[in-house]
Amino acid sequence: MAKDSGSKITPRAQDYAAWYQDVIREADLAEPAEVVKGCMVIKPHGYAIWEKIQAALDKRFKDTGHKNAYFPLLIPESFLKKEAEHVEGFSPELAVVTIAGGKELEERYVIRPTSETIIGHFFAKWISSWRDLPLLINQWANVMRWEMRTRMFLRTTEFLWQEGHTAHASHDEARAEVLRMLDIYGEFAEEYMAMPVIKGGKSRAEKFAGALQSFSIEAMMQNGYALQAGTSHDLGQNFGKAFDVKFQNQANEQEYVWQTSWGVSTRLIGGLIMTHSDDNGLVLPPRLAPIQAVIVPIWKTDAEKAQVIEKAHQIAAGLRGKAIAVEVDDREGMKPGAKYFHWERRGVCVRLELGPQDLAKGATMVKRRDGGDKQSIPLDALGDELPRLLDQMQRDLHAKAVKYREDNTVVADSFDQVRQILDGATAEKGGGKFVMVHVKDDPACDARLKEIKASTRCFPLVDRHGGGGRCIFSGDEVAQRVVVAKAY
Amino acid sequence: MAKDSGSKITPRAQDYAAWYQDVIREADLAEPAEVVKGCMVIKPHGYAIWEKIQAALDKRFKDTGHKNAYFPLLIPESFLKKEAEHVEGFSPELAVVTIAGGKELEERYVIRPTSETIIGHFFAKWISSWRDLPLLINQWANVMRWEMRTRMFLRTTEFLWQEGHTAHASHDEARAEVLRMLDIYGEFAEEYMAMPVIKGGKSRAEKFAGALQSFSIEAMMQNGYALQAGTSHDLGQNFGKAFDVKFQNQANEQEYVWQTSWGVSTRLIGGLIMTHSDDNGLVLPPRLAPIQAVIVPIWKTDAEKAQVIEKAHQIAAGLRGKAIAVEVDDREGMKPGAKYFHWERRGVCVRLELGPQDLAKGATMVKRRDGGDKQSIPLDALGDELPRLLDQMQRDLHAKAVKYREDNTVVADSFDQVRQILDGATAEKGGGKFVMVHVKDDPACDARLKEIKASTRCFPLVDRHGGGGRCIFSGDEVAQRVVVAKAY
Repeated sequence: MAKDSGSKITPRAQDYAAWYQDVIREADLAEPAEVVKGCMVIKPHGYAIWEKIQAALDKRFKDTGHKNAYFPLLIPESFLKKEAEHVEGFSPELAVVTIAGGKELEERYVIRPTSETIIGHFFAKWISSWRDLPLLINQWANVMRWEMRTRMFLRTTEFLWQEGHTAHASHDEARAEVLRMLDIYGEFAEEYMAMPVIKGGKSRAEKFAGALQSFSIEAMMQNGYALQAGTSHDLGQNFGKAFDVKFQNQANEQEYVWQTSWGVSTRLIGGLIMTHSDDNGLVLPPRLAPIQAVIVPIWKTDAEKAQVIEKAHQIAAGLRGKAIAVEVDDREGMKPGAKYFHWERRGVCVRLELGPQDLAKGATMVKRRDGGDKQSIPLDALGDELPRLLDQMQRDLHAKAVKYREDNTVVADSFDQVRQILDGATAEKGGGKFVMVHVKDDPACDARLKEIKASTRCFPLVDRHGGGGRCIFSGDEVAQRVVVAKAY
Repeated sequence: MAKDSGSKITPRAQDYAAWYQDVIREADLAEPAEVVKGCMVIKPHGYAIWEKIQAALDKRFKDTGHKNAYFPLLIPESFLKKEAEHVEGFSPELAVVTIAGGKELEERYVIRPTSETIIGHFFAKWISSWRDLPLLINQWANVMRWEMRTRMFLRTTEFLWQEGHTAHASHDEARAEVLRMLDIYGEFAEEYMAMPVIKGGKSRAEKFAGALQSFSIEAMMQNGYALQAGTSHDLGQNFGKAFDVKFQNQANEQEYVWQTSWGVSTRLIGGLIMTHSDDNGLVLPPRLAPIQAVIVPIWKTDAEKAQVIEKAHQIAAGLRGKAIAVEVDDREGMKPGAKYFHWERRGVCVRLELGPQDLAKGATMVKRRDGGDKQSIPLDALGDELPRLLDQMQRDLHAKAVKYREDNTVVADSFDQVRQILDGATAEKGGGKFVMVHVKDDPACDARLKEIKASTRCFPLVDRHGGGGRCIFSGDEVAQRVVVAKAY
């Protein structure tokens, strides 16, 4: 088991950004790579969370008919230029391979920042008739975007993600796919991550470079900042035209395909941390926790030791039979308190204390990571009680996060009001809000919000803030309020 | 479902290399990327095999205490130079990033060809005491080696693999790990891939650049060529010294760690194809087949159609309950024969034909992909019979491959004999053999074998060829025969 660094975690109220880095370090999730600009190493405990995220999403993708495939890491530089908006959006962030096998390359390659272009190239080979559609592909891969300001998990030059790429015979079908995947992301965020999200359409200024329209799920972090946690893009026929992806439709006419793409990344782990964790370290929702329960045997004499350790492993075996991921911490030369501290920082959902007195009573003292008193649970009820308790914790974390977001969502009707609300909110000090405002979907309006370092996050698919009104910038009538916030 | 290309598969006897490419295309496993030199696209059916390989191996790695992590794709160029043999071995094959974020980089990065160096850098940060050891890490990742001659799956510039990296407090412990992982690879090859392998030590000339000693599993393809299907390396303290990975041992002295690394890659899929497939297309061992059974309903009238299709789906549901991966091919406008052909090419293990007459008899005609007559199996026995039949097929494929290897393994006692045996053997024409010869582990001897385009494959851990004798080159006494072959 990895050592504790012994360093302190900065309280959130003091410096939220420092707290975030501290939690990642103390929970042993990741560390900055330093020698590779803007990159990180995802350590085993962090990677185990990613594996749980992957498993849950991958099942949903497959259940909805998508198949995994793998496309090259390197993309000919010329490919990006085929879609004008796309190259404009991505070229400042590209890492370029100019030498390979000891020779200067004639055509340079970029490391994929996303794969619409190279996949478009192959779709053109694979699709010829409406019978080949829909084509529903997903890829789990690493991608690279040379960002200036990075933050572990939230924004790193290299990150891991999945990117779905689909082609359809009609815009309606493509549109349905875009929204279906947005729903899957939303469900996953709510039910697995216990992270409430707002599903909505991005403004034209904020959409994916090359898309007709983008949709996202937006979550609120504990400093009131927004996190775009997943995106789903209606690519229209833009990439179809750029890569000549045509099919013969049922009327025997050649037509460009309608495409979508959608993705979530290791950024989700940043979202998990910033939604649930506290000043004592990581808090994880049970459905994504690599270790859901730890049993800490407590002893004084050797006779007690043999007894509690044996019983602890017996209980663990029983709980594993109930599909609970459990560990026994029977390390020597370490006090129970130090063990509690160790697992608390790492976000283990529940701790079971098992001493000679507990054994005598046939019970164990159980403590939930997210607060509340210890409770004694009879050992023979544990197999039923613990899954119930974990379910309850999953729901409680979600409810708490919903309440936090609702408490920090406000309505405003002028730019001055928005400015006042968001003034002084920083990633470090917190104070961010979701401000529901009428803003026209016009890049000029988005630009005004940049003045106060805010942005439109999304036009919610479900409007809970009273419909139309006049744009605070243009005065034009708009159909609904948009979420405005400072964002990661 | 993907279309059939309608192209023919070249018979193995005519051109084995062309046959291999044809099988990959007709089974829809992958295709050359062309626009990215030496790369391929792994298509859904090929990637599904990789996922099955991953799942089986990942479980074994975790069961033996290894944890997954993720390290950066890019490695500072200077890192490779820290281990003299390592840089010499890999520098001709590197892809180099010289520009990122629109700027020329001060320190260039290489795309990892393997990760010993970057992982060594982090091990140095993570390890300080014997208590931190052993450190058992695995990474699933893409890597890049700019090879001149590529062949889908077997050797591509980018490939997918896992790389285990471990650090230990003693050479004995590291050595045990190296052999433990070699055993896991060997077991996986035999039991899942149904591909017999010889476990053994590589010669000094053939070892991994930077290792003290390398071990491999070597398999025989149907053209008698050897395929190095997995490797496990005893790195000694070489990378420990290069990256200053020290620990305080139990005697309170500073010592360099003892490291290992081990890997298998998408190359295994090439091995699978070349071990079992035939002139009609892909043949897959049931334990790695993404689709183990296909039900083809047969009908003439609409009434029959409704009935057989309904029953086919009912049977499929039942078989899925028995953990059999089954599909129903109820496509319209396609004759049963064309469907048989389609699934045969794709390596589906068994085909179930279900027509009105079968239904009347309460039975289905079952045909194994690897030959033999059709047999009628009562529908109510299918849930028991089909798993049994798949198990039998798994064993039969293995036995057939063992026999092929034994039939093509010969003993030789002079270079002339070796030359005669391997003369004229080519990847295209076949005729390769495993030649068991006494050769001294001396790069000078390995160099002589290169004259006839052969190489030492491994010194088998279990010697089945009669112990010591005189080296055919040096005349020196050596302890055992080595496998000599032409190889991929």
